Amino acid sequence: MDAPVEDPQRPVADLTERALIARIRDRLRAAPPWVIIGIGDDAAVVEPARNALEVITTDVCVDGVHVDSRFMPPAAIGARALAMNLSDLAAMGAAPRLATLSLLLPEALAVADLDALVEGTAAMATAHGVTVVGGNLSRSPGPLVLDVMALGTVGRRRVLARGGARPGDHVYVSGTVGAARAGLQQLQAGASPDRESAATGRYVWPEPRVRLGVLLGRARAASACMDLSDGLADALEQVAEASGVAIEIDAASLPIAPETRAWFEAAGVESVTAAVAASDDYELLFTVPPRKQGRLRHVTALEKKVPVTRIGTVKAGAGVRLKVGDRLEPLPPGYSHFGRSRG
Amino acid sequence: MDAPVEDPQRPVADLTERALIARIRDRLRAAPPWVIIGIGDDAAVVEPARNALEVITTDVCVDGVHVDSRFMPPAAIGARALAMNLSDLAAMGAAPRLATLSLLLPEALAVADLDALVEGTAAMATAHGVTVVGGNLSRSPGPLVLDVMALGTVGRRRVLARGGARPGDHVYVSGTVGAARAGLQQLQAGASPDRESAATGRYVWPEPRVRLGVLLGRARAASACMDLSDGLADALEQVAEASGVAIEIDAASLPIAPETRAWFEAAGVESVTAAVAASDDYELLFTVPPRKQGRLRHVTALEKKVPVTRIGTVKAGAGVRLKVGDRLEPLPPGYSHFGRSRG
Repeated sequence: MDAPVEDPQRPVADLTERALIARIRDRLRAAPPWVIIGIGDDAAVVEPARNALEVITTDVCVDGVHVDSRFMPPAAIGARALAMNLSDLAAMGAAPRLATLSLLLPEALAVADLDALVEGTAAMATAHGVTVVGGNLSRSPGPLVLDVMALGTVGRRRVLARGGARPGDHVYVSGTVGAARAGLQQLQAGASPDRESAATGRYVWPEPRVRLGVLLGRARAASACMDLSDGLADALEQVAEASGVAIEIDAASLPIAPETRAWFEAAGVESVTAAVAASDDYELLFTVPPRKQGRLRHVTALEKKVPVTRIGTVKAGAGVRLKVGDRLEPLPPGYSHFGRSRG
Repeated sequence: MDAPVEDPQRPVADLTERALIARIRDRLRAAPPWVIIGIGDDAAVVEPARNALEVITTDVCVDGVHVDSRFMPPAAIGARALAMNLSDLAAMGAAPRLATLSLLLPEALAVADLDALVEGTAAMATAHGVTVVGGNLSRSPGPLVLDVMALGTVGRRRVLARGGARPGDHVYVSGTVGAARAGLQQLQAGASPDRESAATGRYVWPEPRVRLGVLLGRARAASACMDLSDGLADALEQVAEASGVAIEIDAASLPIAPETRAWFEAAGVESVTAAVAASDDYELLFTVPPRKQGRLRHVTALEKKVPVTRIGTVKAGAGVRLKVGDRLEPLPPGYSHFGRSRG
């Protein structure tokens, strides 16, 4: 039995696995009727959605690699672990449905921090209609790790893949690029996370473009789509390679917020170079054939709060080039969470 | 481009993320036609199975917590990470279908060890008809971590849950109990893993009871089922609690292999106490109503290579008791991967 007044700083290792699972379950929303068996058995049992393909992704959030608990609140880490996965589903045009949450907890982690972490995941799940149907708990001899699997659904002819871009298609990006990286740099320099900030707010509380992705898929407006979690440069390279095309980006058209531009320039780096290489913007890159521009206008009319900017054109050939004034330059290198520089 | 002759000991950090993903993909079996988009896009897209419920589980394998790379070959670690999940699906009566594999790799891990690890997962997947549809790769600032999500299918009235045991049901366990723990202790004492050994072989190369679970579900023979990954004592407690019943186990009937018994006794511990507390036996505990014994005989006739032993009876009441001669004793405490002693 827990003491009536609980020390919020007591470590998770003081609780049994069963008590920890009960705390987690209490913080997740009630399961809808299609969840036949939820958390608490060997596995979850669900009724699949009808007449839809399933889209499955998994992405991990490691303290010290993908996030930094020294300046990110636990709720933001919990939210981000799910957001990373929802962004991948959005990039396929899929509506998210369910997720599993695997937690590796350092024994010294405060129970209050675990609570906040799960509340962050739960809030992100509720915002996007996702049910956490199960998970796993283990102690971590290393850092805090959150590994999420998310499953969504998409109509058979609504899938947005990377390989469908064709010469002549227009290239678009949602939101802005580089803001999250500027925010991370500000946090590393000692700034406090501020939800209203166009920099730290964008890094700490990303908003996956779930509705935009679903609308683009439903309208069959986009020929290719990918999310920007590893940066715009990486996304452009991957779409160009998967589609067997070249992409030409107009540097002047890139949606870089004034605050982002000012931050990079003050740090002595060229803002376009910094912004295209920057990771952690949970935006969508997509291509639209000229004859489907009307469908895109329909989508943007339905999702007015997310700006969409045309940044370039798909060409025959290979590779990604940046048009700066009259010059065509190779794209600055992107970002990799693993290994040395990009191949 | 890789050098023509490769140093098998070079660390994974020497390769790009893309090169590592290519190596992993090369070691997994070709995707069946129901995989519309496999590894390489933002997410996998699959055609769901028809007329079946979906069963979803996730389980993590952390070096130093659930496995020990000092005496477990990488292929065995890769196989085990999937086996843990297949065992959970089997305990629900579900036929496994697909999995995702999330890898956290220490930078110093040899590329050859990563190859072997993935080959171990791939072999376990092939043995049970599982397709690895996606995954994720990250560097680990801590230990090697393999996090797996597995999805299987089961007919609507074929689900095996924990809560269905009723007074009068017979209690069964597959295989033997305690062998894996004896094997682990032998490895910790310096023994080499030996696939033919009834101890180290059982710890290092567990065989999830996938077919037995599916047959028990299809025959609707079992009223409750759970796997033994956290030990028999834990499984008995959970089934009794979820079903709102008591369980009485006959100590003399427990299937403890002679080698296991001898090992525990030589170490000065009582073999029944050690065996019921032992984790890592990937066996199934299940209950069968008396009127369904014929269905169970049908199942065991179809799956002859897995012995099934009656170990006790479900009673009205609560808790688990062990019958030793004429005495009824409380069950020795089980095992927890997390926190202090069990609640």
